[in-house]
Amino acid sequence: MSVLVGNLLVVQTGGGTCAANASLAGVITQAGRYPESIEEIYGSLNGFTGILEGRLIDLQEEQQSTIRALRHTPGAALGAGSLTLDFNADSALVAQQTTALFRVLEANNVRFLITIGGMRTMEISRRLHELARQRGYDLRVIAIPKSATNDIPGTDHSPGFGSAARVVAHTVREAELDMLGHGEPGCSIVEVPGRLSGWLAMSAALARRGPDEAPDFILVPELGVDENALVQHIQATIERRGACSVVVADGVRNPQGRPFLAETVQADSVGRRLAEFIGESIGYPAYVYEAGRLPFHAARLASDTDLKEAYELGRDAVRSAINGQSGFMLKLKRESTSPYKCTNSLVLLEDVVRARYNRLPLDQVDLARLQPTEGLRQHLLPLIQGDPEVPLDENGLPEFAQLNKVLVEDLIQALEEEPPTEPANPEPTQAA
Amino acid sequence: MSVLVGNLLVVQTGGGTCAANASLAGVITQAGRYPESIEEIYGSLNGFTGILEGRLIDLQEEQQSTIRALRHTPGAALGAGSLTLDFNADSALVAQQTTALFRVLEANNVRFLITIGGMRTMEISRRLHELARQRGYDLRVIAIPKSATNDIPGTDHSPGFGSAARVVAHTVREAELDMLGHGEPGCSIVEVPGRLSGWLAMSAALARRGPDEAPDFILVPELGVDENALVQHIQATIERRGACSVVVADGVRNPQGRPFLAETVQADSVGRRLAEFIGESIGYPAYVYEAGRLPFHAARLASDTDLKEAYELGRDAVRSAINGQSGFMLKLKRESTSPYKCTNSLVLLEDVVRARYNRLPLDQVDLARLQPTEGLRQHLLPLIQGDPEVPLDENGLPEFAQLNKVLVEDLIQALEEEPPTEPANPEPTQAA
Repeated sequence: MSVLVGNLLVVQTGGGTCAANASLAGVITQAGRYPESIEEIYGSLNGFTGILEGRLIDLQEEQQSTIRALRHTPGAALGAGSLTLDFNADSALVAQQTTALFRVLEANNVRFLITIGGMRTMEISRRLHELARQRGYDLRVIAIPKSATNDIPGTDHSPGFGSAARVVAHTVREAELDMLGHGEPGCSIVEVPGRLSGWLAMSAALARRGPDEAPDFILVPELGVDENALVQHIQATIERRGACSVVVADGVRNPQGRPFLAETVQADSVGRRLAEFIGESIGYPAYVYEAGRLPFHAARLASDTDLKEAYELGRDAVRSAINGQSGFMLKLKRESTSPYKCTNSLVLLEDVVRARYNRLPLDQVDLARLQPTEGLRQHLLPLIQGDPEVPLDENGLPEFAQLNKVLVEDLIQALEEEPPTEPANPEPTQAA
Repeated sequence: MSVLVGNLLVVQTGGGTCAANASLAGVITQAGRYPESIEEIYGSLNGFTGILEGRLIDLQEEQQSTIRALRHTPGAALGAGSLTLDFNADSALVAQQTTALFRVLEANNVRFLITIGGMRTMEISRRLHELARQRGYDLRVIAIPKSATNDIPGTDHSPGFGSAARVVAHTVREAELDMLGHGEPGCSIVEVPGRLSGWLAMSAALARRGPDEAPDFILVPELGVDENALVQHIQATIERRGACSVVVADGVRNPQGRPFLAETVQADSVGRRLAEFIGESIGYPAYVYEAGRLPFHAARLASDTDLKEAYELGRDAVRSAINGQSGFMLKLKRESTSPYKCTNSLVLLEDVVRARYNRLPLDQVDLARLQPTEGLRQHLLPLIQGDPEVPLDENGLPEFAQLNKVLVEDLIQALEEEPPTEPANPEPTQAA
């Protein structure tokens, strides 16, 4: 392994979570420990868009206290950016974009590229790793998974998920109390994000300590749910225990694979459609609690296990890059569930991208009762443990980190002065 | 004052909050301290409906630990009940209902009636106090205010409000981080409950520490908001600071007094309508975060000040009844804002009912910037202070009280056996 000396660039993409900034804090802190290899620590504002636009900030200009506060600050402090490199675009555009991007990386002597993101980020990271090799540019690319809905394959679970799961479990318990507070038999419906994946919805079951506790039924996109059968089960449950609690992932479908109740009832959301359908067909009131993206950011209800894992993945991503690795995603590998122990190791980005999707194991779902099996429950339970310490400000509200965002001005001027010449031998890429 | 000996009955109505059960805990705990006056402590299941149906539970059958846990348990543990006595109904029905109700009270020797609720509860409590006097039945009625939207007059503020306000302020800060995490200029819209009242929406301003922080604009039902002017302000804000945060009470109206944007854009909620309108008219993305009723129940984000005040009002309600008072609401009286100090005192239910509504003081709203004045901000700030201690269960989730709900069986049988005779001289009541 040659000793590589240069700058480190960290990129966040695809929207924030409770844990995405913890990974960022891990990267920045660890990068500062290799002054012999890493000269500057840059962050790209707004994901890959920021690189293309040369909008890099100097993370060494941030205060230590800000970096520490990132560990409990939700969101994506660098700004995720909507434009990502689309390798399905026509090859001329792809070549133009990647050329521009490498021009910035090379102009800045970026040798260590750490990305924090979801599946599109994994795909882009893999491509950049390959393109660097093709160009003969020594660049080490390590990706850190980030997904509140746990849809990234190749890792036991993704940072951001445990916190969102914990908030959803909280929410289900509190929504049930709200519903019961009305004092009349009825149904609570908690709608959670999950267009493709039922992981987050399934985690709501962690709120349940007995058979007559919320949630009674969990609807996930992986299963076609029969609308009339469901409502009969809801009716039977209300008549038995005076209440019914349903958790619904927003991507749930009917057995024909079409959006749930979309052809039967008109409303903006699946939760509202279900509430209306329940009212019309069995006459009980149903109350909708739309979690939206707020569970992705409910800092004080986050899982400390999640935040710590995210931080350590950030730290180890830098270690791996320093150790000469490239083209990998850092993954969590479960060593033991009880006592819970995960270690960090590497998985080829190529394998992650090929697997495409972290499927909910349907053999771990009790299909008759729409609940996780005890095995899946035990798998999920450690991920929501621990209460993070979030300092409160003078108003009694959580105190979050705010980056100074000092732009790397010199670089920008250098780029502006330099004529945008194409490299002698641009590498066209193929559409995926 | 004669020494009155009998049973105490506590009633919750009108949906739960973070603090309604803290008041209940205060009532139960204090009631246990007067064994010479209070023989049994009953709770009505499902508000006044429960009295009519003779569904009373024996609160002395609950464990001490359950009563203690009520102090941080959201909702309405007794069940609020949808049927309330409607004094606007025809007088024959009212006479029938109140006769039935007094039959239960008298059969149970209920001499102390403590109610926890909103404006309809104040109205019913006042009537029951009057009817008891007319019947010559010695009954002491004391009401405790409960309103997450702070719409009860006659008190500095209502229990439940401070906690909901704190959660809304949290939410606004976290929704802004989510929006900023996208990395592109845009708008966040937090929709909060407030059909008639802007108190809760206004409290979101407590999240704001500087001019370029969330929330930028707060839309309250008390003001007619011009839709086009607002969108221009939003545009200017996005162009200045890259983001705009709007808080909207769901009852907001346009200057013609009609529901906001309802005639312009179709969507299920005012937040979604505003998001669509922003997208269509200025082209920026807007993200909607619907708080719904969840802030009323977010136990771990509640205000400890609020929970303590609610508990102490419960305690003092019993004291007042024991001291011979009846026909009063317990109110919070602000002695000082800095340092914050409220004391409890009594206000005639008649005066509360006459005032009808706790208006947002519009002279305390900066109409140009749609923000509270510094004075209103200082008024609200103490109400959201303090972090409640909420124990976590073995799954890392908040542990809430669950009542055993042991029905007072003997009574129910006695009632069933007794023929439903009308009293010799029923008191017809007048429609209000």
